Formats: sequence, structure tokens, C-alpha cells
Amino acid sequence: MVTAKLPDCKIWKTSISAIASLIEEAAFKLTPEGIKMKAMDPSHVALVDFEIPASAFKEYDVKRSTTLGVDLAEMNKIMGRARAEDEFTLELDEEKNRLSLIFKGASTRKFSLPLIEVDESELPEPKLQFTANADVVAGVIQDGLKDAELVGDNVKFELTEEGFFMHTESDTGAAELRLQRGDPGLLTLNVQRPARAMFNIKYLIDMTKAASSTDVISIQLGTDLPIQLDFKIAEAGGKLRFLLAPRIEAE
Amino acid sequence: MVTAKLPDCKIWKTSISAIASLIEEAAFKLTPEGIKMKAMDPSHVALVDFEIPASAFKEYDVKRSTTLGVDLAEMNKIMGRARAEDEFTLELDEEKNRLSLIFKGASTRKFSLPLIEVDESELPEPKLQFTANADVVAGVIQDGLKDAELVGDNVKFELTEEGFFMHTESDTGAAELRLQRGDPGLLTLNVQRPARAMFNIKYLIDMTKAASSTDVISIQLGTDLPIQLDFKIAEAGGKLRFLLAPRIEAE
Amino acid sequence: MVTAKLPDCKIWKTSISAIASLIEEAAFKLTPEGIKMKAMDPSHVALVDFEIPASAFKEYDVKRSTTLGVDLAEMNKIMGRARAEDEFTLELDEEKNRLSLIFKGASTRKFSLPLIEVDESELPEPKLQFTANADVVAGVIQDGLKDAELVGDNVKFELTEEGFFMHTESDTGAAELRLQRGDPGLLTLNVQRPARAMFNIKYLIDMTKAASSTDVISIQLGTDLPIQLDFKIAEAGGKLRFLLAPRIEAE
Repeated sequence: MVTAKLPDCKIWKTSISAIASLIEEAAFKLTPEGIKMKAMDPSHVALVDFEIPASAFKEYDVKRSTTLGVDLAEMNKIMGRARAEDEFTLELDEEKNRLSLIFKGASTRKFSLPLIEVDESELPEPKLQFTANADVVAGVIQDGLKDAELVGDNVKFELTEEGFFMHTESDTGAAELRLQRGDPGLLTLNVQRPARAMFNIKYLIDMTKAASSTDVISIQLGTDLPIQLDFKIAEAGGKLRFLLAPRIEAE
Repeated sequence: MVTAKLPDCKIWKTSISAIASLIEEAAFKLTPEGIKMKAMDPSHVALVDFEIPASAFKEYDVKRSTTLGVDLAEMNKIMGRARAEDEFTLELDEEKNRLSLIFKGASTRKFSLPLIEVDESELPEPKLQFTANADVVAGVIQDGLKDAELVGDNVKFELTEEGFFMHTESDTGAAELRLQRGDPGLLTLNVQRPARAMFNIKYLIDMTKAASSTDVISIQLGTDLPIQLDFKIAEAGGKLRFLLAPRIEAE
Repeated sequence: MVTAKLPDCKIWKTSISAIASLIEEAAFKLTPEGIKMKAMDPSHVALVDFEIPASAFKEYDVKRSTTLGVDLAEMNKIMGRARAEDEFTLELDEEKNRLSLIFKGASTRKFSLPLIEVDESELPEPKLQFTANADVVAGVIQDGLKDAELVGDNVKFELTEEGFFMHTESDTGAAELRLQRGDPGLLTLNVQRPARAMFNIKYLIDMTKAASSTDVISIQLGTDLPIQLDFKIAEAGGKLRFLLAPRIEAE
């Protein structure tokens, strides 16, 4: 028997929505400690690290560890039918080799998703020496990315003692966003050494799209290093982290 | 002179929207008692029965019976321009062989719709021995149909002593909705004999799409019989009824 | 140094949105008195006259007159990223030959738009003897145009002592809007001589689309003359005027 019940659908729905825009298949590892999933996008540019500890669940009954291979596009379609406030239960039907997703609101709705074989090759665990970090309101980053998309394909992120900057330049123009130390959208700013790196805009839009505009995103940055984005998905210690490789700037 | 004035556009607008998604042409019969329309969809799977009694109108001036052939897609486009709260008048222009639809709100807007010849062959009047019925909140059925659509083409409806159930199964998964006796979405449940039958999802989505999610739909069901859906469209005794033939389950 | 700062983005955003749907390129003339722009659409049917006086700006620093050639589609895309309430600054970067558009809200966002060569051939200054005018609530005209669009390509406007009328007729039906003297949607009506003329619906939809439904549009009409539409865009005397040539009715 494997059952995991969350008080609502919000975390799972928004996390899967962001993850499914980057990654096609994933292996969810259910252990007595919680649910974990790590995966890489098909072009090996983006890494996702998703985790909900047992303590975040309202009920959590996983006696022995098991791995569930899932087609994320299918799971996302099903989560698209959930209301954020529905009670949400994951249940394993071992006989039929299916995962049940149960939404309890005005009625009880149950979807069954066939489990699939997923390649579980080891993922890289990059050790990165970030030199600056900031907590930024999601809406500001989302605005900056949509601005940047008008102008080009890549956007430069920069953290300095002055603040947080995004910059895109192309033949058709330029877009720039400035958030200065003290601005309400910039909650924290720690700069050991100023950092800047350039990233593909479309990936960042996919990663950040599930956040509501008032959520907070934690950014870790190092010059020409991957960017690490952490979303606060659960008070009780859940984790949704994306790593995205930089584009090296042509000088 | 033929004039019929409703206090607002809501009933006509929502009814025509649902009907026009199933049926292309219709013959509206205007008599001193009211307006009636019965029609069958082109593939002879669905039947609609629409009626507004003279008493539901604010003004109703139909001296002798007349039948108006209407292209429902055209009428629906025009009703799409109405605001729900506009006063609504139907007026026959016998000289030009046109039906006027008049919306009175901030301004007075009048559309003229050419009348057409409509085949008025006799429609079947099926005598059906339903064995169970229930009043269900429209939003629950609409949710269940959209859920089912993710999974397959047909959905099984079931009424038992326990409650109301929808179920769809295919190679790509399964979807199920349960509304139990006592749940607020299930207003009444009368089961003489448990009933179940399977129906095409797209037809049911078209039939129920005009209902607002808090409306109530009355379901009549018999095992492998057509389903009958009644919408409460007018306090004063209006009727919007759909009948849909079952799909016989492959065993 | 050329800088012009408006307290918010609303006027510029909505005006450019309407203008860009008709006209591809425009020459904005910046003088110490304010910003002016006149242009004609590619098929020479519509004329736009846009003006914001220096006094409407929060800061206005234009020492010597200059003309800025702009691709309106590009400017409109950028304005689409502005929030109506963002503080808005136009700034000329003479070195790079670019115009900066700066939105200040939760963050400071700056777009740079390349300046282009624009043909500044003299525009016609038609002297028109309008014989009737009316101030009409924009929502009524917008409704009437969408109604008319269902039926045909051209709509007749009429101003008489009785009120304001729109009328479209085609083989597929007719649509008519009546606003009578005294109706709340008709704010003023002055008829020296009744006037009627017919216009292309699509042009009028483009011209009026930026107005919010509660805005007021001033109409000037003469029989078979162009129509003149004025939008109230700034308390401090801004001007957004469209002139549209009539279609001569086939009798």
C-alpha cells in the first residue's frame, strides 16, 4: 500500500506544470522520508530537483521505497483538471501498474495514470561556487523575462552590490531591468563577488511560469556558472530547484 | 403582428448556445400558448426539446400560430452580441420574411435574420422507462466531462443507491467521478433500479456547456437507455431538454 | 538631452495601440511645446493626429525641436509590456540613435528602440464642413461596430435631431443601433443639418479599440464626408484624432 495525501493540490499542480514544460519523463522516488525526483531536460541544459518530505503530507504511508516512472505531459494534463484547493491523494495501484491521482472537492475525482519505464542513469551533481545570491519577487523576474523575449533569445543576469539586473541586447533593440538594493521586489541580496552570466530566455520562462507573481525566487549566481533557482513550495521543507547552464557570451 | 418580449436575454442566449452546438436548423413554433422547438441533430443521436410558455414573456402577442425556420448558427452569432441583462424582443417582419432580434440596454440594437425553409418531418417521441433520476449541480457534471475527455471518447453514467458516478477508461488511463448521497452537489437521488449507460462525451459537453456551474441539471437514466437532461431555464415553466442515445458497451 | 516623463503609461499605451493597428511608421515631432505626430495609413483612407502638450508631462526637457522616426509595431510591442500605472519616460539616446522607453513600477525597465528614416511628405489638411456632432460613450460605438461586423463590411453612421444611428445591411441580414436624444450613452447632440455617411467597419474597430468602454468619443459628421473621431486622452489638452474617408454608397 502506497498512499500520500496533501492538504491541497497547489504545490503538486504548479511544480509539475513548470517541470513538464522542460522534461518529458521522470522517476519519482517514494521512500519513508518523502518523495524525490531529479531529472534533466532532453538537451542536457536544465536540471530539476523536486522534493516533498513526508512531514509535508497530511497522510503519508510508504512502507518500502519504490520508484514510479511517469510521463510528465500526461501527469500535467491531469493536474490541469485539479482545483488548487482540492485535497490531493497519490495512490499506487500495484496490480494494474498505475498511479491514481485523486482530487477531493465538491466531488471525488480519480485519475489513473499508467506507469512507464524511465531511464534512471545517474545525473550530474555539479558542485558550484556561487558568489552572489538574492531573493527576488517572482513577478519581477517574470516581467523581465517577457521583456527580454521581445528583444532576443538570451538574457544576462547580474548581481552586484547595487542590485539585481537583467539585460538583453539585439539588432532590434535592448531591454533592461533594474532592481536596486532597498526596492521592495528585492528581498535579500548577498554579494561575495559580483556575478554575471547569460541564459536562454525560453528555459527561464518555463522554469518560472508556475510561480505566482507574489512568490519569492531565490537566485544563486556565479560568473559564467549555471544559475540556480529555488522556489518556496512548502512551508514544511519542500524543494523545487532548477539549474540552468549558461550561454557563453560571444565577445 | 408577432411580438414576444422577454425581460432579459439570458434564457434565449444560453439555450440557443447549447442547441446551436448540436443542431444546424430549427423550426420554432409560435402559438398563443408560447414558443416551442424540437429538433434532432444531423446524425440522429441527440434530440432537443425547447419551450417557453407565453406566461414567461413580459409581452406576448401571437394571434395565430406560425412556424419560423431559423439557421441556428446565425441566430447564435447574433445572441452572442446580446448582454444577458438586455431586454429581448423577437419580432416577425412578415413583409421581408425576416425575424428581428432586438436588444435594449444602453442603446437599442436590432438584428434581422432571414427566415429559411426547414424540413419539419415528424420527430420520434421515445417512451422511455427511466429507473433512476438525480438533480446534480451543473459544475460537477461539467468537471466530470472535461476529466473524461482527457481519457477517452465515451463516459459511463451510473446512478445507484450510493450516488452518482461517471467513469471513463482507455489505454491511456482512467477517470472517475463520485458524488455520494449527501454530498452538496447531489441535490436529489431517486433509484427505483440502479441504472448505467455510456454516452459520447462531446455531445454531453455541448449539451451542458451553456449551464452556469451553479445551475442544476436533472438527469433521468435507465440501463442502456438514452439519457435525459433537463435544465431549469425559466421559473415560469420553460423547458430545455436534451435526449442522447447511448453507446452500447463492447463487452 | 531629450527627456519627457508622463505620470503613467495609460495615454501613450492606449493611443499607440490604436494608431499602430492602422499605421506602420510615424515621425514624432518633439518641440518645446510638446509631442506631435500626424500620419496616414498605407491605403490613404485614414489619418491620425496625435498630440501631447508639454504641460501634460511631469517632466519635459526638449530644448530644440527634433523628429523621431519610429516603427509603430515595435513601439506597440514595447508598450504592451508596460503596466498602465507605471511612470513612463521617453529618452533620446542621440549617440546610439535610439529612443529609450522607461517604465518605473516595482522595478525600472528600460527598452531601447532603434530610430528609423520616415518619409515626411506633407499630409493633406482637409477642410471639412461637418454639419452635425455628438459625444457618444465609446462602449456603445464599440458594440455597434461589433454588431455591424457580423453582417457586413461597411456601416452607415447617421446623426439627426432624433439621435445617433448605425446601420448595416447585407444578404445575410441587418444590424441597427439607435441611441436617442436623452439616452445616457448620448452625451451631446448638435445637428445643424442631418448627416449620414458610410464607412469601413474594420478601420473604425481599429480606431476605437483602445478606448475603454466608458470613455467618450466625439463624432463629427457630414453627409458623404469623412468622419472625425476625437478621443479625450489627457485632461491637459492632449489630442487623439482620427479621420476616415467615407465609402460612397452604391444606390
